[in-house]
Amino acid sequence: MDDRVEAHAETLVDWSARVEEGDDVVLSVGPDAHELAVAVAGKLGERGANLLCTYASGEISRAYLRASEGEFDADPDFELAMLERADAYLSLGGGRNSAATADVPEETRNAYDRARQGIREARLDTDWVKTLHPTRSLAQRAGMAYEEYQDFLYSAVLRDWESLAAEQERLKELLEDTEEVRIANEGTDLTLDVSGRFAVNSCASVAYDSHNLPSGEVFTAPRACEGHVTFDVPMTVNDRRVKDVYLEFEDGEVVDFAAAQGESAIEGVLDTDDGARRLGELGIGMNRGIDRPTDTILFDEKMAGTVHLALGRAYDDCIPEGETGNQSATHTDLITTMGQGSRLELDGEAVQENGTFRWE
Amino acid sequence: MDDRVEAHAETLVDWSARVEEGDDVVLSVGPDAHELAVAVAGKLGERGANLLCTYASGEISRAYLRASEGEFDADPDFELAMLERADAYLSLGGGRNSAATADVPEETRNAYDRARQGIREARLDTDWVKTLHPTRSLAQRAGMAYEEYQDFLYSAVLRDWESLAAEQERLKELLEDTEEVRIANEGTDLTLDVSGRFAVNSCASVAYDSHNLPSGEVFTAPRACEGHVTFDVPMTVNDRRVKDVYLEFEDGEVVDFAAAQGESAIEGVLDTDDGARRLGELGIGMNRGIDRPTDTILFDEKMAGTVHLALGRAYDDCIPEGETGNQSATHTDLITTMGQGSRLELDGEAVQENGTFRWE
Repeated sequence: MDDRVEAHAETLVDWSARVEEGDDVVLSVGPDAHELAVAVAGKLGERGANLLCTYASGEISRAYLRASEGEFDADPDFELAMLERADAYLSLGGGRNSAATADVPEETRNAYDRARQGIREARLDTDWVKTLHPTRSLAQRAGMAYEEYQDFLYSAVLRDWESLAAEQERLKELLEDTEEVRIANEGTDLTLDVSGRFAVNSCASVAYDSHNLPSGEVFTAPRACEGHVTFDVPMTVNDRRVKDVYLEFEDGEVVDFAAAQGESAIEGVLDTDDGARRLGELGIGMNRGIDRPTDTILFDEKMAGTVHLALGRAYDDCIPEGETGNQSATHTDLITTMGQGSRLELDGEAVQENGTFRWE
Repeated sequence: MDDRVEAHAETLVDWSARVEEGDDVVLSVGPDAHELAVAVAGKLGERGANLLCTYASGEISRAYLRASEGEFDADPDFELAMLERADAYLSLGGGRNSAATADVPEETRNAYDRARQGIREARLDTDWVKTLHPTRSLAQRAGMAYEEYQDFLYSAVLRDWESLAAEQERLKELLEDTEEVRIANEGTDLTLDVSGRFAVNSCASVAYDSHNLPSGEVFTAPRACEGHVTFDVPMTVNDRRVKDVYLEFEDGEVVDFAAAQGESAIEGVLDTDDGARRLGELGIGMNRGIDRPTDTILFDEKMAGTVHLALGRAYDDCIPEGETGNQSATHTDLITTMGQGSRLELDGEAVQENGTFRWE
């Protein structure tokens, strides 16, 4: 077995999920994540945890959902009971076709999701971590050769997390002392009011309330914003490609938008509900192992030298007790590269110039 | 998708497991049983059942068990709770290597099994069914080409179960009216006292207390036996090949034994405990779709024109209230072909000659 698979498993079990002896661990295995699952099972055996493997296949979901009549029992008891008793839930993504559920009617998918709210909450109540095994499907999506993609993925996952956590803690503290963030870049001049909001040091460990491996970002929830922004990183939004999305804000709300490609997808997001026209997140990518976009949000938004903003729902972790963050059914991330000439300012002072932090 | 995969799924869901709307169904998927799982998921969606997929991989089990220190928590709550609430448990076997767990120490495996008795019982309390998807690993074990093995497997699974059930019911009733069964064959002359014992019509449906797909046998639990028997069908017993096993019985107990190959494996079985030297089962194969042994007990023991006997534990379904069947930690099946010159007699009357029932 590739040593990196073993190292990935160890990072997941020890750094990310903090699995301990006697923990009840659900391991959700994608069809092509088998090899990682074998490595993780070995680590769980070593730690003395209890293991139950579930199988997460898009093709199985598609067959089930398409054959159904579109009505679903609420939170089936056998699955809910399992998740309510689980200590950790490790999701090893890795399918064979990222479009495996493309022809499932959206209303069926939504009805299924709505019926499973309790199950989702029970899962989110565990020490859950989502990671990806490098598959040919993901390589194809990234436009990369398989070995090239493996190198890319492990470079993103196998970081010195301890030291990245320390660096991110620094930015988190700075952000929490900040009233106004300014993002200045080609096609972008946006100021965001982040006063009194918490920032999250997202460094791929449940000990930091961070549930993605890899992670590597610091994020907060702006109260309001003013100005315009261009997102140069190509993305897939609701199954459609978008490029060079442009948003203009007044009083915290989108008042104009455009895109070089996929404008209607952005329009669809903005029309979701009132909260979809406001920002729920400002995130700053810090993972230097991620050096290019790969059309997978788990990686793209953590890319060092990028900033992302999300239209829609804010994360509770950023909101002080007694306040309410932005509410919406959507949370759509869009990413801009902080290249030559860019400035990220905290209360007028540059914390990052040309994509490089002042302490780098 | 091969129409036969769809037909297999439909047989499993409707004939075997009798799944109904609202049932909570655990689908245990082997690594190479994916295609069958997709078809089964479609049927479950159609029926309005709830679906939870688990992943049953020998390689994952091996990694977990070998890494562990050999001690296991008793019946982990999250898995027990899931199974206690499940209505059905469908096991789709289909690995990539039937020797995937060959180097797991036996004491580790046994310790794991012992710790999971409650989980096993909860699973057996559901409408459970075990079936196999045709894989290259199973084809190899059978010594068959892949397409040849597919033909073989579907011929065994896709029967007219309704009519086989009726035929087997006839033999079941005859057996329950019988005091003494005689098996006469080349190298075999054995009489078995089956008086007052129930026979089971095992026709691949939970409605008949039959949990294998395919099935196709009628079995009972002899009280005693006298004579000798030669088992010409090659088998794997505790991971060792055995051939031409010969057993001699006096007063229901093995008094002499031999084998052309694997004699020590048979000795190991006989030395398990006192009950291992007595018979727990007499089974009569009735599945005409199974025309040759494939080194997989799920199929071999149901082969039409064969009779099998098991050393060790008797099934409770055969034992009248208030009586106790043979007790043992083992239940080891051995099979003999009823070829030219063979007779199967019930109270002195031939019910089968030369492998053909009198009603065929």
